[in-house]
Amino acid sequence: MKIRSVKELRAQVSAWRSEGLTVALVPTMGALHAGHLSLVEDGFRRADRVVASIFVNPTQFGPGEDFDRYPRQEQNDAALLDSVGCSGLYLPSVAEMYAPGFCTAVTVEGLSQVLCGVSRPTHFSGVSTVVTKLLLQALPDVALFGEKDYQQLAIIKRTVRDLDIPVQIVGVPTLREADGLAMSSRNRYLSPDDRRIAPLLFQVLSEVGTAFLSGQNADALCADAAARLIPGGFSSVDYVAIRDAETLDKVDRWSGNPVRILGAARLGTTRLIDNVGIPVDQTNL
Amino acid sequence: MKIRSVKELRAQVSAWRSEGLTVALVPTMGALHAGHLSLVEDGFRRADRVVASIFVNPTQFGPGEDFDRYPRQEQNDAALLDSVGCSGLYLPSVAEMYAPGFCTAVTVEGLSQVLCGVSRPTHFSGVSTVVTKLLLQALPDVALFGEKDYQQLAIIKRTVRDLDIPVQIVGVPTLREADGLAMSSRNRYLSPDDRRIAPLLFQVLSEVGTAFLSGQNADALCADAAARLIPGGFSSVDYVAIRDAETLDKVDRWSGNPVRILGAARLGTTRLIDNVGIPVDQTNL
Repeated sequence: MKIRSVKELRAQVSAWRSEGLTVALVPTMGALHAGHLSLVEDGFRRADRVVASIFVNPTQFGPGEDFDRYPRQEQNDAALLDSVGCSGLYLPSVAEMYAPGFCTAVTVEGLSQVLCGVSRPTHFSGVSTVVTKLLLQALPDVALFGEKDYQQLAIIKRTVRDLDIPVQIVGVPTLREADGLAMSSRNRYLSPDDRRIAPLLFQVLSEVGTAFLSGQNADALCADAAARLIPGGFSSVDYVAIRDAETLDKVDRWSGNPVRILGAARLGTTRLIDNVGIPVDQTNL
Repeated sequence: MKIRSVKELRAQVSAWRSEGLTVALVPTMGALHAGHLSLVEDGFRRADRVVASIFVNPTQFGPGEDFDRYPRQEQNDAALLDSVGCSGLYLPSVAEMYAPGFCTAVTVEGLSQVLCGVSRPTHFSGVSTVVTKLLLQALPDVALFGEKDYQQLAIIKRTVRDLDIPVQIVGVPTLREADGLAMSSRNRYLSPDDRRIAPLLFQVLSEVGTAFLSGQNADALCADAAARLIPGGFSSVDYVAIRDAETLDKVDRWSGNPVRILGAARLGTTRLIDNVGIPVDQTNL
């Protein structure tokens, strides 16, 4: 079932609620892959109905980023969602999301300025604002986001907690290709040569995690890791970092508190991000 | 009934909803006067139950402003609310509103930087953020705010529209003393001499409105009005302005679209604000 307006969305959610059913929301930008479908499947373990949204949000792309070429494939996405029994597909237009005169922003200080926020200074405010809107449009019981975008997940959890948005946020572990590359809609930008290089990011982050657990210093490990990515074929490295899993504050040495090893690097014009949790079985915030 | 936590508030609102009752919220900073009580009374014309909140929000006071001396009189306020049959009084602590690590802000660009935003640059972000929180904590059907704080009302309407907060915002006309002074919790700061001077602000704004309707130019009228307040006894004038009633954009001449005449001026250390609508009977946005 395709839904294109806030009014229809609210009517559908209200109809389900009046039957006593619970509702999960899976916000996406489309170009769906198995990782997205795992969010929908996880949604069905937590709620009776799952709505996926597809909205390529212009306000979270900076100047010169890939908003125009970001893949749009509504028919294919709809078929994929049908294949996992998704209850509804919400496809708002830019005009439906941003009415004339729109001028409000939700920002999360600190968390939004580090890591990816350094090279993408307006990105996370765009994310916090659009996710706040989607959550308040749908008012689901639970909303699911991939751990692949780990900083985004941390910022969304903080937004929901700080603004008292009445929803539970769930992070879902990253799905990977057989060689370890995190699934991402942007992987399709990679040339065959770059695709062969790409899994090195996950491999390096995993090795940093193991070395950190053995007691090594974070700064030295991260510097070494970044230095390995360039001879491995990456064009440039935005960061490799070891951070507290919840606050994303810097961590020097393993103390037993959950941390996240995060990296962002470029292969040609494509920017890849990935992250791994330490300890591995407690990666969810 | 006094409510001190988000959890209790949501339980009470849910209980009312399960009985099929509708709910209005009247957010205040306490130190209640007849203007606040008129908001509660208006709430009962629009919903079955009315909850008033009292929270002196630290984030909307700037450095050197009157946060510390802002009047707190919980017992008196509770008795006043009982006298008009208010269904509940929500009294969250600062710790309940701002948990450790709180770092999210809601900002409305443009609307928040003009008029009072010039001398109070962080004020309206504090207002938008706390009102968003109160609305999402209570999830009322309707929330009522005084037109006395007209710029605040315009910013709250914009916030709710832009973020899709599922609530109707209602502006309630200003109540005035017999001599025209707008009722305000801050009037108690005025010395007897200043109290005699204070009604001049409303008088001047009203005369500006009449002259504007007759076709005179806005800039000239506002400059004249500001110049009249100083010999009248005011210490300084922050602004006298004629603005579009919804966007608060500048307006040069009367064109038939609703406008608002707004003023802010200081009497000693007390800052007074007031506003009047033109045409008088269409002042609500």
